[in-house]
Amino acid sequence: MNGSSDDQTSQSSPQRQRGPAEHERREQILTAANGHFRHYGYNKTTVADLAKAIGLSTAYIYKFFDSKQAIGEAVCGQCLGSIQEQLAAIADDDGKPASDRLRRIYRTIGKLSAELFFNDRKLHDIVLASMAEKWRLVDTHEAAVLEIIRRVVSAGRETGEFERKSPLDETCEAITQTLLPFWHPILLEQNLDDLDKRTTIVANLVLRGLSA
Amino acid sequence: MNGSSDDQTSQSSPQRQRGPAEHERREQILTAANGHFRHYGYNKTTVADLAKAIGLSTAYIYKFFDSKQAIGEAVCGQCLGSIQEQLAAIADDDGKPASDRLRRIYRTIGKLSAELFFNDRKLHDIVLASMAEKWRLVDTHEAAVLEIIRRVVSAGRETGEFERKSPLDETCEAITQTLLPFWHPILLEQNLDDLDKRTTIVANLVLRGLSA
Repeated sequence: MNGSSDDQTSQSSPQRQRGPAEHERREQILTAANGHFRHYGYNKTTVADLAKAIGLSTAYIYKFFDSKQAIGEAVCGQCLGSIQEQLAAIADDDGKPASDRLRRIYRTIGKLSAELFFNDRKLHDIVLASMAEKWRLVDTHEAAVLEIIRRVVSAGRETGEFERKSPLDETCEAITQTLLPFWHPILLEQNLDDLDKRTTIVANLVLRGLSA
Repeated sequence: MNGSSDDQTSQSSPQRQRGPAEHERREQILTAANGHFRHYGYNKTTVADLAKAIGLSTAYIYKFFDSKQAIGEAVCGQCLGSIQEQLAAIADDDGKPASDRLRRIYRTIGKLSAELFFNDRKLHDIVLASMAEKWRLVDTHEAAVLEIIRRVVSAGRETGEFERKSPLDETCEAITQTLLPFWHPILLEQNLDDLDKRTTIVANLVLRGLSA
């Protein structure tokens, strides 16, 4: 089952080989994986398929990723990273009141997550596989969202828009919990219909709790 | 695949048979199912196993339930119904301020759901099967929780404890959304560790949003 042993001797290691730098090779594998996963589905793609597509040996791929799961995790992480970047841009938009920014974060996390997981059904497979196998992805994403929330709440407290009596950490963690139903793929799957309405009413309730 | 046809002629229908009333037979089947599901697991139990355990034909069971899924749904529904009763008792405890009652509802829904789904791993199978097959259970439970929340919020508005400016329906739906991470089996499974802390901080945030 250890794919790294099958033709290790016939293939030089990336360190010794001329050609693209390690980072580029890694990106190349992820790009191929992203395409294959979206086209054929995560479950139906093998590491051998990916190796064939980019003209490398499976052993070479195993130098970068321990398993197909590790590749899936990296692809999924890139997608979630893109969502985090868009949320961070909203959080850091100093021209807007913090309440507006927080409201947009609720709407945007729902919209982008729904697009990622459901407009692209094949990618959805990876996410569900990641849930089933308890990857770190969910925790990492939640931590990133918490950090983004902290920036908005801190900004709102500095300008006097938000109350300052409650402990900042607790408040930010609580807000992050209320965002869960809007980005967790299994919850989203069960209820995509009135996502806009639900993000709006929860944001309204939370903002009343934050107001100075 | 239609189990009701295999020995229908050799078994009189419940309407014509003497003996326990239909309701009691139904309860008898559910009790046997509950025991079997908890002992052997939902996936490993067949309708034939249940029939054997209570000395009935599978055809007789199929007169009450269309499928094993329907039996599983009924067993799971009973468990969720028990949680709803305990939450309703908290909601209707007029001697306590509405804010105390709401706070207890957050803590209790987390505690009871965690006990139901995880102290009894075999029952957890039923719940996960219900998720996978998109049963009505989740919707029904959510609707019941919404109704319980509405009673507490209405009580708090009547006594002047809670604000009355926001639309009652929207506020109650928003609160119900914030409860989701504390009773949804898949979310609970991913994060049981600090359940008490999380229910407390979300209740704090929501109660600040409700205060008059």
